[in-house]
Amino acid sequence: MIKLYCFGESGNAYKAALSLELARADWEPEFVDFFGGGARDPAFRALNVMGEVPVMVDGDVVLTQSGVIQDYVVETTGKLGGDTPEARREVLRWMFFDNHKVSSVAGPLRFMMNFLAEEKRNADVIGFMQMRLISALKVVNTQLEERAFLVGDHLTIADIACCGYLYYPEPFGFDRADFPNIDAWLDRIAATPGWKHPYDLMPGSPADRA
Amino acid sequence: MIKLYCFGESGNAYKAALSLELARADWEPEFVDFFGGGARDPAFRALNVMGEVPVMVDGDVVLTQSGVIQDYVVETTGKLGGDTPEARREVLRWMFFDNHKVSSVAGPLRFMMNFLAEEKRNADVIGFMQMRLISALKVVNTQLEERAFLVGDHLTIADIACCGYLYYPEPFGFDRADFPNIDAWLDRIAATPGWKHPYDLMPGSPADRA
Repeated sequence: MIKLYCFGESGNAYKAALSLELARADWEPEFVDFFGGGARDPAFRALNVMGEVPVMVDGDVVLTQSGVIQDYVVETTGKLGGDTPEARREVLRWMFFDNHKVSSVAGPLRFMMNFLAEEKRNADVIGFMQMRLISALKVVNTQLEERAFLVGDHLTIADIACCGYLYYPEPFGFDRADFPNIDAWLDRIAATPGWKHPYDLMPGSPADRA
Repeated sequence: MIKLYCFGESGNAYKAALSLELARADWEPEFVDFFGGGARDPAFRALNVMGEVPVMVDGDVVLTQSGVIQDYVVETTGKLGGDTPEARREVLRWMFFDNHKVSSVAGPLRFMMNFLAEEKRNADVIGFMQMRLISALKVVNTQLEERAFLVGDHLTIADIACCGYLYYPEPFGFDRADFPNIDAWLDRIAATPGWKHPYDLMPGSPADRA
């Protein structure tokens, strides 16, 4: 059985977990106590020099980076990928855009605004990150203007990448009402049979730590 | 002939340009006047909804995102990729790490510290971004502790992704002396036959605008 090292608050882990779940892979989560320092543990660092979740272990195969795990899910299950070489490149394109412009901003921003000690929060940094996130989400919203999904006519790992942080309830400067195409697209993804919210799919949530 | 929309100051464009150059592809640069608003031009936006360089045009194939173009170079030339399925995944892993943690920070940081009007620069934002960049570069430095290149024993597009911003002379908080493994690795990459500095490989540089 595939083991995925993850925790509920990680949108990057969610991308891997939701891809495994919607592709009906045989997997189970392995909780990493990130807020208790679990990702800085030497044993975990030995598994991933990057010191990040998700990490996927499938027998001898150990993978890190959500995008690589998502690609592995497509390769091994034949689901959630592009149907042609062009579509596969387009899927990869939106995964890179997500990593470069969406999740790389949304993740730290949401952390700063919700999980970082209040005295360490910096309004200028938060404002800068919010500006960058909104700019990136406008691009996603435009892409969804005349499309149900980011690539082709069905759900792919590109959608699952870009939505990784967008279902979380904690405030981080993203309001679905400001992005009507994203709003409808998030509803479409959530209507996929088997879809689960990150806090239902992975162990650990702010409620558990409250 | 392949056309690459780019400009000298873009490390993301450099990743694509250097991959094309070192794979001996038949290509030519097409200058985008980013600092004159060229990437916001409607014609350019029509080519790339993301409003970014690089964009590669090879006949009917139009690709954006440096990682996708790099992947295309490997696919069409057979060079600069991983030699096994495992190595190919490892290459992709470092490309995602670069996009998520290295270039997505180094690019805006270098822009803020060098090209943004001085009155718009914010010391807190710059400090935050420098902290993030150094944290990511420590991971790259650790990976290079016992390796000549990031994946396997030869240069791949993973190296070309992660070094994208690291040859630029403008200060952005990265000092080669602080990262001895990165320092030696940058020299190794630069010793590859055909290697060129970004300002020699692509049109446009601060000197041109001075």
